[in-house]
Amino acid sequence: MRPQDVIRHKRDGGELTRDEIAYFVRGVTSGEWADYQASALLMAIFWRGMSEAERLALTEEMLHSGRTLDLSEIPKPKVDKHSTGGVGDKTSLVIAPLAAALGLCVPMISGRGLGHTGGTLDKLESIPGYRVRLSLDEFRDVLKRVGMAMIGQTEEIAPADRKLYALRDVTATVESIPLIAASIMSKKLAEGLNGLVLDVKVGSGAFMKRPKEARALAEALVGIGRGAGVRTVALLTDMDQPLGNAVGNALEVIECLETLRGRGPKDLTSLCIELTARMLVVGGLSDTVEAARSLVRACLQSGAGVEKFRQSIEAQGGDPAIVDDYDRLPRAARIEELLSEEGGYVTKLDAERVGVASMMLGAGRVRVEDQIDPAVGIVLNKKIGDRVDRGEVLARIYYNDPARLEEARATLREAFRLASERPRRAPLIKEAFE
Amino acid sequence: MRPQDVIRHKRDGGELTRDEIAYFVRGVTSGEWADYQASALLMAIFWRGMSEAERLALTEEMLHSGRTLDLSEIPKPKVDKHSTGGVGDKTSLVIAPLAAALGLCVPMISGRGLGHTGGTLDKLESIPGYRVRLSLDEFRDVLKRVGMAMIGQTEEIAPADRKLYALRDVTATVESIPLIAASIMSKKLAEGLNGLVLDVKVGSGAFMKRPKEARALAEALVGIGRGAGVRTVALLTDMDQPLGNAVGNALEVIECLETLRGRGPKDLTSLCIELTARMLVVGGLSDTVEAARSLVRACLQSGAGVEKFRQSIEAQGGDPAIVDDYDRLPRAARIEELLSEEGGYVTKLDAERVGVASMMLGAGRVRVEDQIDPAVGIVLNKKIGDRVDRGEVLARIYYNDPARLEEARATLREAFRLASERPRRAPLIKEAFE
Repeated sequence: MRPQDVIRHKRDGGELTRDEIAYFVRGVTSGEWADYQASALLMAIFWRGMSEAERLALTEEMLHSGRTLDLSEIPKPKVDKHSTGGVGDKTSLVIAPLAAALGLCVPMISGRGLGHTGGTLDKLESIPGYRVRLSLDEFRDVLKRVGMAMIGQTEEIAPADRKLYALRDVTATVESIPLIAASIMSKKLAEGLNGLVLDVKVGSGAFMKRPKEARALAEALVGIGRGAGVRTVALLTDMDQPLGNAVGNALEVIECLETLRGRGPKDLTSLCIELTARMLVVGGLSDTVEAARSLVRACLQSGAGVEKFRQSIEAQGGDPAIVDDYDRLPRAARIEELLSEEGGYVTKLDAERVGVASMMLGAGRVRVEDQIDPAVGIVLNKKIGDRVDRGEVLARIYYNDPARLEEARATLREAFRLASERPRRAPLIKEAFE
Repeated sequence: MRPQDVIRHKRDGGELTRDEIAYFVRGVTSGEWADYQASALLMAIFWRGMSEAERLALTEEMLHSGRTLDLSEIPKPKVDKHSTGGVGDKTSLVIAPLAAALGLCVPMISGRGLGHTGGTLDKLESIPGYRVRLSLDEFRDVLKRVGMAMIGQTEEIAPADRKLYALRDVTATVESIPLIAASIMSKKLAEGLNGLVLDVKVGSGAFMKRPKEARALAEALVGIGRGAGVRTVALLTDMDQPLGNAVGNALEVIECLETLRGRGPKDLTSLCIELTARMLVVGGLSDTVEAARSLVRACLQSGAGVEKFRQSIEAQGGDPAIVDDYDRLPRAARIEELLSEEGGYVTKLDAERVGVASMMLGAGRVRVEDQIDPAVGIVLNKKIGDRVDRGEVLARIYYNDPARLEEARATLREAFRLASERPRRAPLIKEAFE
């Protein structure tokens, strides 16, 4: 077998065998495949797609290119949630404490934000002292003690995925459903899970702008999970407008704590309830989603989630006092109100534009090497369907650098569209795949 | 502009601009484009194809990546012929002398054989002393004196093509019409031509097995020639059976000399007449193909072609005495007759199998670095449509190494198929594109 034979097979529309896929993934890691051969195959996969069997084989080979966690000594169902990312998408910080408080073990390996979307790690790092870089041994230890732990991608997990992703990024082969699905699942399956809940975002602020693509991704993800023997559910959820009100790292941490106290925005709260409930079901702790939702609601009432988050912060070196004293989090020097120039109903609140405005303030990165400012961001006061009077506050802009304000404000203003008729609201949770 | 933007543009089915194509070709030569980016774009081109404007731009950028010949000091029309390659395809050695004898300047830059197909350079090198590696200055000098010269690809011509071809070879992106067409034409246009005749082979022994692909290639080639202002004609010709009777380097040289003396096989002779006639027309020395054919036939009668070939051999350091004394060429130590085991008509004579059998004897290369044996090969005694009696000679095998005979003979036997009904003969020249 030579790399060009495998490339030709896929190029001509054939289904790659497990052996061919193993040869590719191992060859990319070992250097037996040249990068130019890998990128030609990636483009052929982009073109021809992959069958369910191929997607599973690719995922498993990428998974086995590195270390996998063995959490069998922890006598709890191991369940994680993964989101494809969006604007104001902060559910991890609410869900992990809730799920852990309800008896699941949540080994969460997350990423950083890039472009208009935020990242869980950046939000966590706005908590003074919080360490997202634990070794796998420390990670296991925190999981054992707390029931949840949140860290960044390590060198040891799925190295083939890291290599392939870097190549895809510079060869215009990122937006391929099978490649995206295998990349996500190879890292998630490395966590040694029993169950997995996927939040596939669709809309202007999401990676998948159209329902058709988001649906295809959801199906691919669930198919891989099923093939790998992990109970997997994917929810298709709205990302046309930001989730919750806060966009920006410390601001989102505060919103998560408020949500864990039962005082969060309605959309964020209801999505967190649904995702946590699904985690309980795939983890085997509840028989029905309805029963699971009741457990989660009770947990929001009891404050057990806030306590779990406090324990988790302490276990990862952060300042647990932030839980009760938000002033201990980084705070922006200035706040500017964005006032409405007209009256009406908000009919559009473009998530991507809000994300870009927040990035302009310094809350996000244009390039991976950029530093972010944890304090800055936007808190929305009005969302789609809300009635607005002329001169009313649409949003508050938290900023440190006055030079960055003007551009961000103009972009944020463009995100809002008002009209005299109240719009029909799109459902937040659009579909479930299992 | 970044490489990934250009790749994405083609990946999504767009038409690349001249600037994008120039950026690609120059970037590949300079190293600004990484090989993995070039190969991803090559696969995207393989998938999406290229418009006529894109093909012309790619050809011209590849052409200008290196040196081009300026033959304006030679006061004759500069015309070349290029064949896409086949088995027993030796027309260059007949056509170049005829065309030069009739007043054209023929600056022929050729390739070597690989796999089952032979190469003009290998045939020429079977002539003792013949030098195919002339500098471009020597090449110009021979052209001025003789009116024809035949050399191999030099480092100076279209370096981007060499680089891209090496990449295509190991990334399964060889069989793409626009890439093949641009590769051929970038090298041919570097010869500073006024006219070009292309012999696009189709059939089992050709690179293009199916008429549809061969037609697409012929159209692409002619389109590029037209766009570049070079009068270009392409003929689609049969390569289901070998051309002529001889397959193997010195054996083919002898057959060419016989053809130049008017004693060649009918198919080879008629194709050489047609191709040379087309050269005279695109070179402006004849107004009609019919008139041109008469000139070529007269030249075969007069022996002017043989004399021109003799001059050419002498000018390139070869032994001109081989023209009259074939024994001065390398000769195989042994000859084995392949006898027919049945009677009937030859209905099939698979060119690829004959080529492979000849390669097995040592006349061709499996890998580019293989040495070839100039003496060995096959001379067919029967071709499609011929009547054969049981025990009659189908072919003669010229060999040196007895260890190679068995396999070659078995393969050659498989190339023949006999039946009781006389087959309809396919036309040798199928179509003309101009």
